Amino acid sequence: MDALPDMQDCIDACTNCHQACLQTALTHCLRVGGRHVEPDHFRLMMDCAAICELSANLQLSGSPYAPRLCALCADICHDCAVSCAELDGMEECARACEACEHSCRRMAA
Amino acid sequence: MDALPDMQDCIDACTNCHQACLQTALTHCLRVGGRHVEPDHFRLMMDCAAICELSANLQLSGSPYAPRLCALCADICHDCAVSCAELDGMEECARACEACEHSCRRMAA
Amino acid sequence: MDALPDMQDCIDACTNCHQACLQTALTHCLRVGGRHVEPDHFRLMMDCAAICELSANLQLSGSPYAPRLCALCADICHDCAVSCAELDGMEECARACEACEHSCRRMAA
Amino acid sequence: MDALPDMQDCIDACTNCHQACLQTALTHCLRVGGRHVEPDHFRLMMDCAAICELSANLQLSGSPYAPRLCALCADICHDCAVSCAELDGMEECARACEACEHSCRRMAA
Repeated sequence: MDALPDMQDCIDACTNCHQACLQTALTHCLRVGGRHVEPDHFRLMMDCAAICELSANLQLSGSPYAPRLCALCADICHDCAVSCAELDGMEECARACEACEHSCRRMAA
Repeated sequence: MDALPDMQDCIDACTNCHQACLQTALTHCLRVGGRHVEPDHFRLMMDCAAICELSANLQLSGSPYAPRLCALCADICHDCAVSCAELDGMEECARACEACEHSCRRMAA
Repeated sequence: MDALPDMQDCIDACTNCHQACLQTALTHCLRVGGRHVEPDHFRLMMDCAAICELSANLQLSGSPYAPRLCALCADICHDCAVSCAELDGMEECARACEACEHSCRRMAA
Repeated sequence: MDALPDMQDCIDACTNCHQACLQTALTHCLRVGGRHVEPDHFRLMMDCAAICELSANLQLSGSPYAPRLCALCADICHDCAVSCAELDGMEECARACEACEHSCRRMAA
């Protein structure tokens, strides 16, 4: 494919974060309940999954708007990592968010 | 635009059902909690939102696969309408699912 | 449903613009060919369709990030309206982009 | 994460096919033009990208409808692989479609 190395890294980080947030929210969080389905936390995970999916897609498409979307994506990933770190069993998801935040900050620069 | 009347009805029904399920799940259901965030119910609402979104998109694109996706969409909408009817405050969502089911069955035929 | 009047207007404008761009690109533009499938124009229409879809979804979800996404969405809609206005048979799509731009600017404010 | 080995393979195959079709259509096909932007071929690539994305997402969510969507996804991937094989520079995309077809057939069984 055509993506440059940095962009390919960011596509992979966004894809990984999308998958971690979607899967964790709809399996682990729903199963555990309690604070894991508290509205602000759960919605943040779904927001994060959705924006990461679009960030990957715009980069794959060669969109000139990808860096601006990556800047927003980085902020959402940051907030989601913080929210996940406060709850049990969310370590893998928090790490995926942090990795995506850093990769998106480089793409946005 | 280019869609035939029946297809335009189905695009509208799928769009309406997508919006009702997504909005109701991430606002009403998360706020109320309890049975509204029981895993099978909540996941069904997210499945229904996602498949309705793609059914609308394939019809807009003039895809030859749209009728087959509509057949699956109708079954998911049926199940989601039944699940919504058992819970408080879900009448509008249940009606959107039923309307989408009927419209998708016509497109799938 | 729960959206305030201004937000409901913006959800509708984003949905309409998403549908107009997706349908016009994958039916009219592909059929006409030539400048209608020139990479920058065609990709812009697909970018616009995708960002409008996510802007509508984040608003439906009650996401606190919706205003920031709407700001980016408005800029892409503006560029897409300009690009559509230079080509034949794109009047309806250009109008949907302009309406979405204005509605998203209000939400972003 | 929680997916079983076969399902994880299918999620990966769907993700890879989604990315290959989206990226190839919106970069290579638009750049080359001619038969690469012929409506039936181009729309098939976009259909394939979209259905693979949803197939991966439903599997990540633990959806009971994933096998039925995988059955449709396999058929679309098959058609897309055939269409790609007739055009220049589409080998990687054709291989991603074939791999996804086989993986989806196993999930659908």
